[in-house]
Formats: sequence, C-alpha cells, structure tokens
Amino acid sequence: MDSVVESLGSQMIELVLMDLSLGNHGLLRDALYELHPAEQAYILESLPQDKRALVWELVAPESHGEILSHMHEEARIGIFDEMPAEQILAAAGEMDVEDLAVVLEELPEDITSTIIDELEQDYRQRLEMVQSFEDGTVGRRMSHDVVSVREDVNVGVVMRWLRRHNSLPLQTDALMVIDDNGRYMGKLDVSVLLVSQSEAMVADIMRRDVDLVSASANEHELVTMFERRDLMSVAVVNDEQVLVGRIGVDDVLDLMREEAERNLLKTAGLDEQEDLFAPAFPSAKRRGLWLGINLVTVFMAAWVIGQFEEVLDKFVALAVLMPVVASMGGIAGSQTLTLMIRGMALDQIAKSNVRWLTVKELTVGGLNGIAWSVVVALVAFLWFRDTGIALIIGVALILNLLAAALSGITIPLLLKRMGIDPALSGAVVLTTVTDIVGFLSFLGLASLFLL
Amino acid sequence: MDSVVESLGSQMIELVLMDLSLGNHGLLRDALYELHPAEQAYILESLPQDKRALVWELVAPESHGEILSHMHEEARIGIFDEMPAEQILAAAGEMDVEDLAVVLEELPEDITSTIIDELEQDYRQRLEMVQSFEDGTVGRRMSHDVVSVREDVNVGVVMRWLRRHNSLPLQTDALMVIDDNGRYMGKLDVSVLLVSQSEAMVADIMRRDVDLVSASANEHELVTMFERRDLMSVAVVNDEQVLVGRIGVDDVLDLMREEAERNLLKTAGLDEQEDLFAPAFPSAKRRGLWLGINLVTVFMAAWVIGQFEEVLDKFVALAVLMPVVASMGGIAGSQTLTLMIRGMALDQIAKSNVRWLTVKELTVGGLNGIAWSVVVALVAFLWFRDTGIALIIGVALILNLLAAALSGITIPLLLKRMGIDPALSGAVVLTTVTDIVGFLSFLGLASLFLL
Repeated sequence: MDSVVESLGSQMIELVLMDLSLGNHGLLRDALYELHPAEQAYILESLPQDKRALVWELVAPESHGEILSHMHEEARIGIFDEMPAEQILAAAGEMDVEDLAVVLEELPEDITSTIIDELEQDYRQRLEMVQSFEDGTVGRRMSHDVVSVREDVNVGVVMRWLRRHNSLPLQTDALMVIDDNGRYMGKLDVSVLLVSQSEAMVADIMRRDVDLVSASANEHELVTMFERRDLMSVAVVNDEQVLVGRIGVDDVLDLMREEAERNLLKTAGLDEQEDLFAPAFPSAKRRGLWLGINLVTVFMAAWVIGQFEEVLDKFVALAVLMPVVASMGGIAGSQTLTLMIRGMALDQIAKSNVRWLTVKELTVGGLNGIAWSVVVALVAFLWFRDTGIALIIGVALILNLLAAALSGITIPLLLKRMGIDPALSGAVVLTTVTDIVGFLSFLGLASLFLL
Repeated sequence: MDSVVESLGSQMIELVLMDLSLGNHGLLRDALYELHPAEQAYILESLPQDKRALVWELVAPESHGEILSHMHEEARIGIFDEMPAEQILAAAGEMDVEDLAVVLEELPEDITSTIIDELEQDYRQRLEMVQSFEDGTVGRRMSHDVVSVREDVNVGVVMRWLRRHNSLPLQTDALMVIDDNGRYMGKLDVSVLLVSQSEAMVADIMRRDVDLVSASANEHELVTMFERRDLMSVAVVNDEQVLVGRIGVDDVLDLMREEAERNLLKTAGLDEQEDLFAPAFPSAKRRGLWLGINLVTVFMAAWVIGQFEEVLDKFVALAVLMPVVASMGGIAGSQTLTLMIRGMALDQIAKSNVRWLTVKELTVGGLNGIAWSVVVALVAFLWFRDTGIALIIGVALILNLLAAALSGITIPLLLKRMGIDPALSGAVVLTTVTDIVGFLSFLGLASLFLL
C-alpha cells in the first residue's frame, strides 16, 4: 500500500528520461498508464520539447483530452503542433466544456470550427454559454455538472431519486436547492442529508441563501471567499438568480496555484505561461522586453551619475562607494513594497490606515538608516581615511532609506490607481527611484561639500 | 440575497475605522457579530495595534478561540498580550486540538500548563498525540474528526448508523473504511453511497487503498498530492496503517496560501509572520538583519570596483556606465533563477535535464546579450563619443548575461545541495555574482584596453 506521494518527484522524471534513452518504450507506456492524467501532464511539462513529442506518442489516446487540460498553455500548444487534426478532434471530444473553451482559443481557426461542428447539440450549447462569459470570470471556470433538488420534497424522495443515478459528481458535498423556475434557493449539505430522517422536508434542513456567486464575478474573488469561509462549493447564478453552475474547491485550488505562480513569475517580468523547457528563441524574445524596460531605467540612473562627473573625477572613492547607497535603498524599499503588495492582495489597505503605515515604515527606514549608516560610514572611513566622504555616505544612506520607505508605500498605491499591477512593475519603478535617490543624495552631497 | 464577496474588501476596513473614530461601538459590535470568525480575524489584522485592542473588546467572547486560530502568529501574540489569563483559558477551550497545539507554543509557560491542566482527559490525549508530531508534518495539521465504517456491513446499516448522528463534519465527502484493528482499508465516497441500494455491501462499493498519507510525512507534499489528483480528503495513517486522522482540502487551501505568502515574503528577506501593522521597533530589528547581509555583498562589489581606481580615475565615463552592465545581469539572472525555483518547487528538475536547461539558458542569455549590447554600445558611443568604451561595454554586457544564465541555473542547485532554501537567498547570491562579474568584466576590459 504505497502513498502516491512517494512515487512522485524528480526521480520519476529521471526514470522517464532513462527509459527513453534506453528505448524501453513498452515499459514507459505501461508506467504512464498507471498515472493520473495530471501526473502525466506534469511529466510531459518536465521534458525538453523533442522528448515531449516522444512521450506523447506513448500516453493512452483516450487520456489525451484530460492530459491536455492539465497542461500550461505554451506546453499544450507545442503538443498541438505535433498532433494530426483528427487526434485533436478526438481529444477535444473528451474534454470538459470549460476546458474546451480555453483550448479552442489556442487552436487555429479551421480546426476550431471543425471541432465545434462535430459537437453534439447540448454540448455545443453549453460551450456557447461558457464562451459568452469573459475570460477571468466565474462563468468561464464553473462546472456544469450540478445536482439540484426542490425544497418541497422530503429526504426519502431525495434519496430514492439519487439512487436512480448511476453516479454523482465525485466531489459532491451538497445538493443545490432550486425553485420551479430554476432559481437558486440554498444548499442541502450531504453531511446533513445523511443524518436526516426520511420524513424531514428539504425546506427544513437546507441552508438558505448561502454560498453563491454571480457567473459574471471576477474569479479572483473566489479564492478569498473559499478561504475565509472554508467552503467546498458554491452555487453560480446568473443575473436572474437562476442556478447555472457550480464552483468546487478543486477549481479554487487550481486558481490559487495559478495566482501564486503568476505572482512569482511576474516579479521577474516573466509571462505566466513561460515554459522552462520551451525552445531558446521564443524565450529570448519574450524575456528581452523586460530587459529593455530595465535598460531604460538604468540609463536614467546613469544619467544622474553623469551629472556629477566633476566630483567623480576628483574623488574616485565616490565611484567605488556609490553602489552601496543605491543597493541598500533597493533592498529596504523592496521589503516595504512586498508587504504592501501582500496587504493590497489581502485587501488590508484602506485610506485610513495608509497614514499610519507611512509613519511606521518611515520609522523603520529611519531606525535602520541610522544603525547601518554608522557601520557604512565607519567602513568608508577605514577604507579611504576621509571624514568628509564617511559623513556624506552616512547621511545619504539615511536619506535613501527614508525615500525607500516612502516609495515602498506610495508606488504600489499610485500604480494601482493608474490601473497597473504593482506586483508586475512595482519593483522596477521602486529600484529606479532608490537608485536615483541613492546616487543623487550621495553624489549631490559630495558636490556640495567636497568641491 | 447578497453575495458574501460583495461585502468584503477594504471598504469594510474603512467602515470599521470610521465606526471606531465616531465611537459607534454598539453598531460595530453588531456588524462584527454577523461575520465569519475568519473575516473578523482579517479585520483585526488590518488594523494598527492600538485599534486592534479596541476592536478585540467588541468581538463576541465565544468566538475568541476561532478568531485567534485564523490569525497570523505575530498578530495573535499581540492580542494575547492584552488578554487576561482567564480569557486566554476560555479561548483555548474553544479551539480545535490542532490549532491549540500551535497556539500553546506562543504562550508563556505558566499559562500553557494551566491550560493543559484544565483540559478534559480525552482532549488532552489528542493534544499530546498532535504534539508528538514534528512541526511541518501531516500529523500536526490533520483533523481528528473522522467518520469511519467497516467494510462488512451494507449501505442500509451505514445509513441507519449515520442517522443516529446529530451531525457529521460539514465537509464530509467520503467515509473512511477500516478493519477490526482500526487499519485503513479505503474510502467510501459519499457520492457513491448516495446512489447505492441498501443491500449493497461497503466492501463492494468502496475504493481500496486510495488517498492516504502518513502522519509523519512532510505537509508540503499534501499540496502536490491534492492538486495532481483533485482530492477532497485523504486518510492519515500511522506506521501501523491505523487510521489516525483526516486531511481535508480546506487544510490544503490554508497550506497553499501559507506557502504562497512565505514564498512572496522570503524573496524580500521577510519573515512569514511579518505583520504589516506591527510596531516599528521590532520590524526594524527583524528587517535590519537582511539589510546587513546585503551590506556585506554590496561591499564585496565595491571592493571589486576599488581594484580599478586607476582606470576609473582616467575615464569618468566608466563610473557613469558601470551600473548598466551590473543591473542588466541582475535582471536576466533573476529571470532564470525564478524559473528554476518554480521548476524545483514543481519537482521538474532532474540531473538529466539540467544540462539541456543550461544550454538553453545560455542561448537565451547570449541572444539577449547580443541584441542589447548593440543598443547599449550605441547609446554609450553617442553619449561619450568613445569607440573603445562603446565596444567594451557591449562585450561586458554579453559576458555578464552569460554569467547570469549560468548563475541562475547553478546557484539554486548549489544552495539546495547545501540545505539552503534557494527562494530565500538565491536572489542575494545571484545579484552579488552578477554585480561582481558586471563590474569585473567592464572595468577589467577597460583596464586591459584603455590604459
């Protein structure tokens, strides 16, 4: 009796690569067959593209649809490129409607229309409904497989009716209760249903008006909602309060993972779909943009330095020490910025506590500025034996840490007001400010007092 | 019928702060009473400490335990400091045993022992069992509220037995099946139970040997397991395969959030418990350490610059341009590093694909190096009208982007082998390398060719 956890991990990748290089295709095929489609997707994503195509040949065709649903966009497109059209059609037929809606956007027009033509009537209707919602809304992500009952029946009737089903969605934690017009009334928890007597009426044991969300709501809100209320599922309703779908906690888990990844990647200017094993050329192109943006900001800092050529020419020690001031500001500022970004993500930042926060962060910056400026000034003095430079670097450091604290608070607020995601560009803007203030204060003070 | 989502967010904080400043304590008390304990915890965490104490007075004492369970350690300790001992005792009595185990570690010895003395016998035993597992293991996080049945009974018996319960845990998606010795045999999904006939035997409709994890396993593995298999719950077993608890997807959601937060915060050298609204002094102390580490690395870079005083003294343009080379290397390297850290977190990195990755990242670095070095050389030439400096900065930039790619791959691997978390210190080590290589290549080439 093995825990699945033990069979996962990078050893699995190692084994796959070994089997591939030894040509043990039969063995590998059998091993893959044993795995969950999500795990097969994970293995495929961990391989360089040429190996991916080989392994794709070995996975069971009937799992194609589900494996593709579990892959990242870029890796999936790479697979589609290698698949004959009829295989794509077959895989599409195996997908849940909400996954298919995502995949269709990645495929060429002609294949898309063939797929849609071949769909059964009611499946196509559901697809059209999903497509009618904007990307990033709850309607795009909800599942359509919802079990609902009416409130004017008793538990015995519900149980008999359920027993006529061959199966229920695996993760059913509650039945949705609707009225004659399909409007959502509330939830009948399975945990309650199971302990209720046959005569009990649904109306008496259901929970009313709970756990619902609009199909047009932003999917990001689901994460907060599920976390704060420890939910397993919510009903999705349209504008007329008619039950149209269900969001389960498994959808929210996917959403959280996607958000966490996106947050991690975007701090480095990377696309959320960036594939570690993508070919070099497209990667270079995508990442180059971010380097270009950074180039503009660093030339701005260089321009500031350029304004002080005279004093730099006289005191070469300034050139040696100037990165210290700039760098310390960048680090301190990014600490404040990170806390602000988290606070904003958790909706903890309101007008009335920003002033308190600013005072607090300025205090933190001032305290650390004073403490470390003593150290920096001492090192500078011991190195260059120049009291003027030692004093100036100390003062510049304090100034830059204060500027860093202020920037760490205000930059994300300003970016947000401008409709720009602070997690994406906050760090670039911040380090531009701390670099410039760092060079300006250090070299500026030097010009004033040393020339 | 309001969606809960609509009532959340920073407006709520705004309203609370307004009510507080207007002295509307009664209104505020009523408003808080309507909220889920997790939401009350969120509000408390969004307030500066003095306001927190005021609002804490207004929340219902019977919710104290659950609210505290939902708070971050640092914020919780702040609340404990203000609470009289008997209130802490009462709150502790309301907590789940797994939450209490966490909280006990934050309290002073004398209060801890009083709490333990007052616990009922079986609650204390469960507490001791939880405490016997190490922090960060599944045993610490599992819930003890598990509904289990035997396999040699039929559905009718199970249903009658369930109906004798007043309630089941709210999120029950499956009953655990055990043998006479309490050993875990498998799962009976509620979705199957509900559609089965009374005569069906549990043995025939259960799923055997699925979804289990050892109590001593690392809790991090749960996230991967739940995600890859779309699970709602797993059975937790001890070394003798005896069922000892259950992990639900709600626990995993908490775990994912904690991991995502920790990953975000540690890139800025922040503690996972760092509280945005903590007082300035302790914050300054905690963050100061990270600044100190950075100071050492930036002085190393300064020392490298110091080796080139002669050439800097002659060509002040070098001092102006040198941050460009260093900064571009840092950005490019952090892109590779971020992808590696993600790849390692997803267990996608194995020995056999590292070579492929290294070649790919060096190619990306080389391509971007060539592209941007042309731009940088051109700007440098137009600025300083010096072909030598323009050529040197171009070459130095290519060298540094190659070094950045190599560092982005090797640094996280080396750190991991040394048992250091790459997400925590990878960026510091990386930028130290790219700064030093950047200054060294640019100023070194300048010394060789311009002097």
